[in-house]
Amino acid sequence: MDRHPTSAGRWQLAARAQRMQPSALRELLKVAERPDIISFAGGLPSPCALPVERLQAAVQRILQRDAVAALQYGPSEGYLPLRETIAERLSKRGAAVSPSQVLVTTGSQQGLDLVARILVDPGSSVLIETPTYLGAVQALAQYEPVFEEVPADAAGLLPERLTEASMRRARLLYTQPNFQNPTGRTLAPERRIALVSRATRHGLLLVEDDPYGELVYSGVTPASLLSMAPGSVVHLGSFSKVVAPGLRVGYLVAPEALMGKLLQAKQASDLHTTGITQRLVHALLNDGEYDAHLDAIRRRYRAQCALMLSCLAEHMPDGVTWSRPTGGMFLWVTLPAEIDSTLLFEDALARGVAFIPGASFHAVAPKANTLRLTFTTATPSQIESGIARLAQAIRARLRPTEPHRPVAPPARERIDRSAVLQAQA
Amino acid sequence: MDRHPTSAGRWQLAARAQRMQPSALRELLKVAERPDIISFAGGLPSPCALPVERLQAAVQRILQRDAVAALQYGPSEGYLPLRETIAERLSKRGAAVSPSQVLVTTGSQQGLDLVARILVDPGSSVLIETPTYLGAVQALAQYEPVFEEVPADAAGLLPERLTEASMRRARLLYTQPNFQNPTGRTLAPERRIALVSRATRHGLLLVEDDPYGELVYSGVTPASLLSMAPGSVVHLGSFSKVVAPGLRVGYLVAPEALMGKLLQAKQASDLHTTGITQRLVHALLNDGEYDAHLDAIRRRYRAQCALMLSCLAEHMPDGVTWSRPTGGMFLWVTLPAEIDSTLLFEDALARGVAFIPGASFHAVAPKANTLRLTFTTATPSQIESGIARLAQAIRARLRPTEPHRPVAPPARERIDRSAVLQAQA
Repeated sequence: MDRHPTSAGRWQLAARAQRMQPSALRELLKVAERPDIISFAGGLPSPCALPVERLQAAVQRILQRDAVAALQYGPSEGYLPLRETIAERLSKRGAAVSPSQVLVTTGSQQGLDLVARILVDPGSSVLIETPTYLGAVQALAQYEPVFEEVPADAAGLLPERLTEASMRRARLLYTQPNFQNPTGRTLAPERRIALVSRATRHGLLLVEDDPYGELVYSGVTPASLLSMAPGSVVHLGSFSKVVAPGLRVGYLVAPEALMGKLLQAKQASDLHTTGITQRLVHALLNDGEYDAHLDAIRRRYRAQCALMLSCLAEHMPDGVTWSRPTGGMFLWVTLPAEIDSTLLFEDALARGVAFIPGASFHAVAPKANTLRLTFTTATPSQIESGIARLAQAIRARLRPTEPHRPVAPPARERIDRSAVLQAQA
Repeated sequence: MDRHPTSAGRWQLAARAQRMQPSALRELLKVAERPDIISFAGGLPSPCALPVERLQAAVQRILQRDAVAALQYGPSEGYLPLRETIAERLSKRGAAVSPSQVLVTTGSQQGLDLVARILVDPGSSVLIETPTYLGAVQALAQYEPVFEEVPADAAGLLPERLTEASMRRARLLYTQPNFQNPTGRTLAPERRIALVSRATRHGLLLVEDDPYGELVYSGVTPASLLSMAPGSVVHLGSFSKVVAPGLRVGYLVAPEALMGKLLQAKQASDLHTTGITQRLVHALLNDGEYDAHLDAIRRRYRAQCALMLSCLAEHMPDGVTWSRPTGGMFLWVTLPAEIDSTLLFEDALARGVAFIPGASFHAVAPKANTLRLTFTTATPSQIESGIARLAQAIRARLRPTEPHRPVAPPARERIDRSAVLQAQA
């Protein structure tokens, strides 16, 4: 590894700053925000899913009854009633968690940063599923690990591909088991058992990132890794997808042995998470309407996901396959090997539709013939029109001499069953 | 430097985690919160200074008119109208700043973390004034620098004590030029000129941390380092002391060459600062009442500072000296050399009064015979009673055989003039 410091203008930078690079994805997202573009690019919740009125009511109550505490410095661990509610909700989902193991973070992105900061030295091995969440790669990469990619298929990462040496070597393994960003896939229950069993045997710390676990559309979310091996798991949670991302409230749950250093890293990072937004999340979780709110989001996203799946089946040419998520926000499309989705992005944009090229979601070896579609933000008519246009762009790349060939009729047999995600028990 | 990783329980930690230690100060602060204690310990604004009603009005407007933007993901750089307002306010104070140089941070603590993260390698030299702000030491220490302390007196750090070699070697110099935490001292204008001149000549980056600059009680705040050498200064600002700390909104201003890496570090840290609180700060800065609000805070704190100074003059025994701040929140007391303020803390607590021992505020060599007093949070009668009790505790340590000797009458000639901070031009 190159340990020579880099520089910016006249200033000598830390070696880790070399690993911080401008995000091509951010540039793509800016383009995708143009009003003439149907965007399947951003990983946002639907504006219709934001509980604006409940937040208005809650913020008034907080500033009337609890203003000074909400506005003064607060504990670095987080607002205790919120930590208690989080512990209680996780316990209901089968993980026996004490509030003392809960640290409120400024979004779960901060949880990733803190975990990486206390665990990763330059050159440390970090196991990471592939493809994976770009924000995790960015957070981890700052601390200069050597990434080792863990292969995965439609049912998640493959525990049997983890060697004993790699597990003993790695400081942590990062995974999103539920409705993963970017693929929408879910780690199968039997693989969870295998992963936890191997990790505990070989002293591997599992970082379970679970921002989408409550967004389940069919069946139930499988048992968390945290519930299976609380002493070997750091669990990251977020209210960005189920309340509002702009609040920047997430949390982590960690083994007691790690809490001290995580807390010290949190203090050094931002002292504590915003007092008002922590109280807002606590109020929403406890106002008696949270489950109804979750149900409404699930119904909305379930319908949008189903519509996008049917549009894909209707419009996509042979050789294009996609995941069938049972929750979350994303679909993953695999194109014929000859199509580079970064080039396809330009064609699609010219047709008024945007997505994220799959190369953005790999820590080491990008796969150029993949792309991510978000099904949560577009309207039904935008989904219909956007998928049709995307299919046209793909067809044009497949047959560059016949760019205007009419769209083929739907053919159910073209669906690649190997990509189907199993509904979870 | 010891580069061997440490561990927590079964888990191998990053080497930098060794430098993260539980804060003794946090434990002291917990004790100081007891209702029977008069606390001069916490570095909090007065609850009376929090603009609760204006925040209530502003948050309603934001959630009525701009809810979706406030609640969705936002730009990592920060809310543009807030960045524009910050640039404008700094420009009025003589620093020509473009909004493109302003990055909104989750409190200025995050600014410190980001600056340290992109600039400091293990073993890098970092120049830091002494005594200094504990939060800065904590943020910097995570990235494993070698601290070199810059000596200071009552008029701030001594630029002539910076050698050419130390300036060329250091990645940055950290200072709080205005009403410093913990001493309340202000860097004299002629020293600012000397510091900036030496720094620009020898390629030293100055990190100017200025959370208290607007809290000026006599004269005016001297010209900022930023205004004198914008190309050589990272300037950190905060709304914690003039609006509310619990909002966690601060900012940094940096040379354009550093903005890219700072932005990438910000993205990896928490994506962006809370949307609602950024809009709240923007609303308060622009509602036409901000200057009146600042004036009210200044009047309040000026009176409290003056009262504490007169109580110190009245009660303190010979050999005790203190700073005379012209702004900010803190007074710095120097005890006779034989008194260890950490031991004194226990005596003072037994008498119902708390402060922060000065040893907490040094990056390298603690000075045991110093302590910090906050004058912003206690009531006038608490200040009177608390300083009298503190003086008793000091007298008891000076003459352990006569612990109940009556308090001496005030004597103006006992004031150590060498500690007087010059009123700023």
